[in-house]
Amino acid sequence: MINAAGREIPEYIETYGKVEPFTGAYTHIEGTYEKTAAHMAVTAFSKGTKQKEPKLLRSIEEAIDRTGLKDGMTVSFHHHMRNGDYVVNMVMEAIEKKGLKDIHIAASGLFKCHEPLVRMAENGTIRKITLSTISPGPLAKAITHGKFKEPCVFQSHGGRPCAIEEGKLHIDVAFISAPCCDAYGNMNGAVGKSACGVLSYAYADAQYADKVVAVTDNLVPFPACPIEISQEKVDYVVEVESIGDPNGIAFGPTKATTDPENLRIAHMTAQLIDKAGYIENGMSLQTGAGGTSIAVAAEVGEIMKAKGVKGSFGSGGITGYFVDMLEEGLFEGLLDTQSFDTQAIASVSKNKNHQVMSASQYANPHNRGALVNQLDVMILGATEIDVDFNVNVVTGFDGTILSSSGGNQDCAAGAKLAIVVTNTLKKGLSVIRDAVTTVTTPGETVDALVTDLGIAINPLRTDLLEELKDTDLPLLTIEEMKNKAEEKAEFQHKPVEYTDDIVVVVEYRDGTVIDVVRKPAG
Amino acid sequence: MINAAGREIPEYIETYGKVEPFTGAYTHIEGTYEKTAAHMAVTAFSKGTKQKEPKLLRSIEEAIDRTGLKDGMTVSFHHHMRNGDYVVNMVMEAIEKKGLKDIHIAASGLFKCHEPLVRMAENGTIRKITLSTISPGPLAKAITHGKFKEPCVFQSHGGRPCAIEEGKLHIDVAFISAPCCDAYGNMNGAVGKSACGVLSYAYADAQYADKVVAVTDNLVPFPACPIEISQEKVDYVVEVESIGDPNGIAFGPTKATTDPENLRIAHMTAQLIDKAGYIENGMSLQTGAGGTSIAVAAEVGEIMKAKGVKGSFGSGGITGYFVDMLEEGLFEGLLDTQSFDTQAIASVSKNKNHQVMSASQYANPHNRGALVNQLDVMILGATEIDVDFNVNVVTGFDGTILSSSGGNQDCAAGAKLAIVVTNTLKKGLSVIRDAVTTVTTPGETVDALVTDLGIAINPLRTDLLEELKDTDLPLLTIEEMKNKAEEKAEFQHKPVEYTDDIVVVVEYRDGTVIDVVRKPAG
Repeated sequence: MINAAGREIPEYIETYGKVEPFTGAYTHIEGTYEKTAAHMAVTAFSKGTKQKEPKLLRSIEEAIDRTGLKDGMTVSFHHHMRNGDYVVNMVMEAIEKKGLKDIHIAASGLFKCHEPLVRMAENGTIRKITLSTISPGPLAKAITHGKFKEPCVFQSHGGRPCAIEEGKLHIDVAFISAPCCDAYGNMNGAVGKSACGVLSYAYADAQYADKVVAVTDNLVPFPACPIEISQEKVDYVVEVESIGDPNGIAFGPTKATTDPENLRIAHMTAQLIDKAGYIENGMSLQTGAGGTSIAVAAEVGEIMKAKGVKGSFGSGGITGYFVDMLEEGLFEGLLDTQSFDTQAIASVSKNKNHQVMSASQYANPHNRGALVNQLDVMILGATEIDVDFNVNVVTGFDGTILSSSGGNQDCAAGAKLAIVVTNTLKKGLSVIRDAVTTVTTPGETVDALVTDLGIAINPLRTDLLEELKDTDLPLLTIEEMKNKAEEKAEFQHKPVEYTDDIVVVVEYRDGTVIDVVRKPAG
Repeated sequence: MINAAGREIPEYIETYGKVEPFTGAYTHIEGTYEKTAAHMAVTAFSKGTKQKEPKLLRSIEEAIDRTGLKDGMTVSFHHHMRNGDYVVNMVMEAIEKKGLKDIHIAASGLFKCHEPLVRMAENGTIRKITLSTISPGPLAKAITHGKFKEPCVFQSHGGRPCAIEEGKLHIDVAFISAPCCDAYGNMNGAVGKSACGVLSYAYADAQYADKVVAVTDNLVPFPACPIEISQEKVDYVVEVESIGDPNGIAFGPTKATTDPENLRIAHMTAQLIDKAGYIENGMSLQTGAGGTSIAVAAEVGEIMKAKGVKGSFGSGGITGYFVDMLEEGLFEGLLDTQSFDTQAIASVSKNKNHQVMSASQYANPHNRGALVNQLDVMILGATEIDVDFNVNVVTGFDGTILSSSGGNQDCAAGAKLAIVVTNTLKKGLSVIRDAVTTVTTPGETVDALVTDLGIAINPLRTDLLEELKDTDLPLLTIEEMKNKAEEKAEFQHKPVEYTDDIVVVVEYRDGTVIDVVRKPAG
């Protein structure tokens, strides 16, 4: 046959197969991609007129129209602006105004500032939320009380990209807040008046969503260096006045605790890490934010300096304290999925060893090696823990949703030494239970519990018990600790009555269901 | 039902669907990924013993065994070490020694140094090669003369990631040369004794190959910052003595021509670019390497300075000349798929506006916006051009393979002004033909031809002809130029006899077949 270049070519070539003839340079501008790959031609393109349809749109409303967003679809957001985010409300209010219904929000995290979503649950705009991070507040209460038409789904930070990559969580339209973006969709989180450091949780959305919209308040000349998410994944760009208030990123304690009891817990934790043999060259550490966690990091840092130890990496949500440790040479690098404060945000763009990582690289259990598998020591939070070391970070004693699994499951499963650090009493009640209200992190992945009453080692860790048996650490069994905590408690737990309504499905990081949250009665 | 966390959960939840119960933290460590996504759990993992199977293997041989490489499979390589590469030969000789047969090599490029592949074509180790870049030499000759059992396939730089992402080119095992790599597979091209700048052409391989092996001569402590290809995509790491000789990266002219005729061509080209209105703020330019191209860049740079113009970007294979232009503030950024010389290599790691881009971001016609679509001006090479402006960069006058399409098709299709720059005579023969020996880049995408005889504008570009009609540029039609070139020629073309054997299938960037190369007779 003769193709459009006027060349005689066969219709079939042995081993090569059937020949698709060239039909003109601009005739096959749409791909045959499956939805799991980056795809879809951005524009019709005519060489003759040299017209290219611009990606830059005038408004969120136009983006909603152009992406073809319809009733029932899934839209996604990332949470690096945390409680300072404006984009979720901005986009959802535009969706609400258009009268779209039954939207599924797949956000890596939502905060108090997202209270307007409660109204949208009630008026039918939103049917369901899937998330990995949530803070206590009106939205958490609304979920608890079954305001959403469908059960919400809580995933871990690694479970989310796992579900997206495996096609279990299909995103129709991803809206990505971009502190720095060019008109062709290259973006980063490090630069601009709303800089949030990194965009890690949005990487899977950018790669796998059917349509990707960047929302920016800092449109810069092409190219937006350093490029963190690149143009070939982005369909549209919308410029808005502000994507958020960076002052809302850091909240809660970002300095070491000064409370004597918490300092004592931090000291015991650091001693446990040291005596278990984890403070050595090449060690790695993740603590998250919070006063006691930072106090642990501080004390571990002092032991590292005293011993002349150089660690491999600090990871996770990064605070200024870890930036100091990097700059002091205590670690080779930091691997950052979320910059927790201004010092961490500033460090991302100036220190090449402060390295962004995707949520998949961080914690996806099904890829070729997540970072959490390399972690030596992880400091975990908990609202409750039971005698099998199962951890609850989702619900309070009364069944109210307070938080979600975040990186808790991921780091517990990966780290060599996963330590839950907590006071034994909260509101006068013991946090050590026969059975936790909700299981979020399975006990088989939790190695130790450190509280004001001492240190309990998971009996599955016979190696650790052997290693520590001749130390002066205040070891006791978790049953002993539970009994002491109950003696110390001002009140006894009252049983909570639940309805049969499931309000949250708590997934384990591999996508299986580890628990459900039912709506409290009354 | 009761799950492994001891929790009572339903078997089915309305809207959520069938419930997969949690069965233990380490029971679902393998993904259900399709082969088009990053996947496959790296290791079996036991929390109890804390054992994790290391990725670091002892040898290439062990990597071949562990990846399950078998007869007939496809292995891939990238070509940033160019003629200094040791990895292709090292891996293929190990495959040959193991007695594997009928291997398909999918390399982004191959060079003279890869002569051993000719022997492996003859002894049946290799059945076929798919590539985007090749230099004249023994391998090109072997392809010309049909030494491979199956026709080879030539793809453009954008066509290659397009085919990989769309699943048309399936890679069983990717071997990635890594100038800097840690034991967990994070790597970059910027650091180390064999630094090659960037690893752009390997990104699609890392993302989509079934198995990924990093081969490094610079194993560094974790994490290998800046991370260019990250650990979650990499199965194994092999340390070798040397991945190549960086002196083999730069070859051919890397300075502006001093030949008077070529300088005159460069001057006319720069004048054409200027008078066509493309030297203005926000302009972009790609020239590739080569003495005349660099002379064009130099002269365009001078005009930019004289006019006080600040450009948007320079792109493509990056030479020191473009680094100078970036450092002089003539461009906002450089977008680099291949660092052509030591100055470019050094710039990558020190200038954040010298930005690596993947081959897909560069040129894939089926993603959401490749960089080539933003190019204003592209300087193209050609071995022949015909009166319809069709370009041949693959074969010489006698049908011998000299090169491959590289970025020629991509940039011609994308750039607003794609200019072929060449002398009209090569070896005393005219390069302007009624029909080129092989069509690689379709004439409808080529806007102008500049030679020692003047400037011919593609008649499809009526806008350009109008724009230039009152200038003093030496315009003539391509037919006029062809006639003059033939008058000037020392010899006449002799018709070449071909067999029916197809030795190369030349794909257009969208995966269609634009031409085939047949084996010359005799």
